[in-house]
Amino acid sequence: MFSKKICDSLASGSMIRAMFEQGNKLKAQFGADNVFDFALGNPDPEPDQEIIDDIRALAGEPGIHKYMSNAGFTDVREKIADHMSAESGRAFTAEDIVMVVGAAAGLSVTFHSLLDPGDEVITLAPYFMEYNSYVGNQGGVVRPVPTLRGSFRPDVPAIRAAITARTKAIILNSPNNPSGAVYPEEDLVALSEALDDAEAEFGHPVYVVSDEPYAKIIYDGVKVPSVARIFRNSITVNSFSKSLALPGERIGFVAVCPDMADKDLLDAALVYSNRTLGFVNAPAIFQKVVVNHLDRAVGLDAYRERRDMLYDILTGAGFECTKPQGAFYLFPKSPIPDDKEFAAIALRHRTIVVAGSGFSYPGYFRLSYCVSRDTIKGSEKAFREIMKEIGQ
Amino acid sequence: MFSKKICDSLASGSMIRAMFEQGNKLKAQFGADNVFDFALGNPDPEPDQEIIDDIRALAGEPGIHKYMSNAGFTDVREKIADHMSAESGRAFTAEDIVMVVGAAAGLSVTFHSLLDPGDEVITLAPYFMEYNSYVGNQGGVVRPVPTLRGSFRPDVPAIRAAITARTKAIILNSPNNPSGAVYPEEDLVALSEALDDAEAEFGHPVYVVSDEPYAKIIYDGVKVPSVARIFRNSITVNSFSKSLALPGERIGFVAVCPDMADKDLLDAALVYSNRTLGFVNAPAIFQKVVVNHLDRAVGLDAYRERRDMLYDILTGAGFECTKPQGAFYLFPKSPIPDDKEFAAIALRHRTIVVAGSGFSYPGYFRLSYCVSRDTIKGSEKAFREIMKEIGQ
Repeated sequence: MFSKKICDSLASGSMIRAMFEQGNKLKAQFGADNVFDFALGNPDPEPDQEIIDDIRALAGEPGIHKYMSNAGFTDVREKIADHMSAESGRAFTAEDIVMVVGAAAGLSVTFHSLLDPGDEVITLAPYFMEYNSYVGNQGGVVRPVPTLRGSFRPDVPAIRAAITARTKAIILNSPNNPSGAVYPEEDLVALSEALDDAEAEFGHPVYVVSDEPYAKIIYDGVKVPSVARIFRNSITVNSFSKSLALPGERIGFVAVCPDMADKDLLDAALVYSNRTLGFVNAPAIFQKVVVNHLDRAVGLDAYRERRDMLYDILTGAGFECTKPQGAFYLFPKSPIPDDKEFAAIALRHRTIVVAGSGFSYPGYFRLSYCVSRDTIKGSEKAFREIMKEIGQ
Repeated sequence: MFSKKICDSLASGSMIRAMFEQGNKLKAQFGADNVFDFALGNPDPEPDQEIIDDIRALAGEPGIHKYMSNAGFTDVREKIADHMSAESGRAFTAEDIVMVVGAAAGLSVTFHSLLDPGDEVITLAPYFMEYNSYVGNQGGVVRPVPTLRGSFRPDVPAIRAAITARTKAIILNSPNNPSGAVYPEEDLVALSEALDDAEAEFGHPVYVVSDEPYAKIIYDGVKVPSVARIFRNSITVNSFSKSLALPGERIGFVAVCPDMADKDLLDAALVYSNRTLGFVNAPAIFQKVVVNHLDRAVGLDAYRERRDMLYDILTGAGFECTKPQGAFYLFPKSPIPDDKEFAAIALRHRTIVVAGSGFSYPGYFRLSYCVSRDTIKGSEKAFREIMKEIGQ
């Protein structure tokens, strides 16, 4: 009666959101202090005062709440182009920037502009499963290629082997959700060579769609290599949800590498897609707010401290875990082969984790440390008891 | 190389946006005061001070900028449900309300939830051509049925004749863009009977998707009948772009009639579609802002005054025009049969209008009176000269 396609999909839901709902139920039953909910990557710091001050100052600016070009305010796009140019060493202009309703919108708009039905998109597992929707809504097909166990680095030979004549794009997401891995420069350079070879073989580019919401959430002095510098055929999708702690406001941008062939056509396609998919434009006031804070990373010290706390608790309890240098997740190995069974056991100890299967990477599980120090401390006993129950 | 489908569509563009660009070019050449630009329905009043005050007050509220349920804040949805219940006499609950990124997003989410490829959607011409995208992106097909000439009222017998076994929905948009017509209660009741008959004949409902961004932009004491009251199988899509003069902020809602069969399934499908299409949630702070101003209509007196001024100028110059009771457009008859040729002639007189063909209703043209009184006054001479050139 309604869309058969959508009703069929409803059952499959999002594992992250399902765990989020489970967590809320447990909290209602046992009290929030007695539930250790690591399910959702919902940045918990408040935006910095300067950001709040900017919202207040801009709220009354004449004309700010009106329609603008579907691509966004020109002055905002110019500033982001300058920022992208400085990071990449390429000459971005305002024409190459489209302001979007968050990174999810940016990815939808990008794949709507790139894909025809049957086109293939490579993802590097573990990966954020919403990519399946953003690609699938355009009739595209996701081809996951696992990263290396433990390091979660791209497996470039495996990517080479996965590219076919129908491969239109590859999604990079570094720092990675859920592994926290920051892909090193050498891996990206090797991947770049693989994509050049594929272009030579198949006669068309494989576009790199770089999903970078965690680009500023990094630790220990690690550098995130500029994808736009390394890959000529790149589309950078960014969001201020994490860096400015504004996830509910839905604001981000898409940047087309200016050295891509026919980039003007892609610029126009993105603006067209932004309009016709129903986004119309990114929220007006937040375009003007974020552009004042392009280098800011709200709450970074607190994230790092909590990463270290949770990492110590987990490894102390006997979990095998790589210490990641980005994002705000840990992705330990499940102590039993079945990660979904592990998540169910953890739930019985009022501990909410998301099974790696929810990221197309079974045998691991994700913890978001966007939670209070108390939640992390309180979870120590639970993790030890979970391990005891499992018999490790 | 990019999406063939999208590149092919790019050429067809939006006639409204094309005229908007033309207007900007002319303004650069002749100065803004010497161009009479009636192309774009961009609400020109500033939001009321109470709205700006609310943005400022809410900007620092703890937690307000975080993720919430994909459906929106529960307290906001409860207030909108109460409002819908009062207007319709039906018992809406928060579950029936999904906050969305403006009405365009609401329509995309609704059709994604309703349609399978090949499903048909009836529109009443003249209509906002973006509907073609919102329906077409889901593989649906738009079947326009012209309203009656001059009154622009629904032609119920013609709608009856257009319904087939594949008809899944009909879009209503009253007050109408571009005609300004407010569909009278008796027409909607007659339509309701036609849809009941179709449901009996074909064994499934024809859903009414009511696009209501202009519901509060009404004049002369006219009443806009509640679609949710008249049609059990209705989905109301609303936006605060026009009523609160916040078009750039992208905030609206979708309301599912609580007396529809299987409405829980549609509620869930809308939330799923909101997430998987990449909208995720409506901008957080604006959810909280708009719910304080559900009955407000910013700038109504100024719109009415300008409607009357422009109407008098046009009819004084010899144009045939119905005086509409809603929205902020006039939709006069083109004095020559070819409305695109007429728009081209007007352009030579530095007057920007949109041909009725841009709304699937040739022989007419649209003027938005979201413009200054000076623009309207200044256009009088131009309209007289246009008529002289045409030889009327």
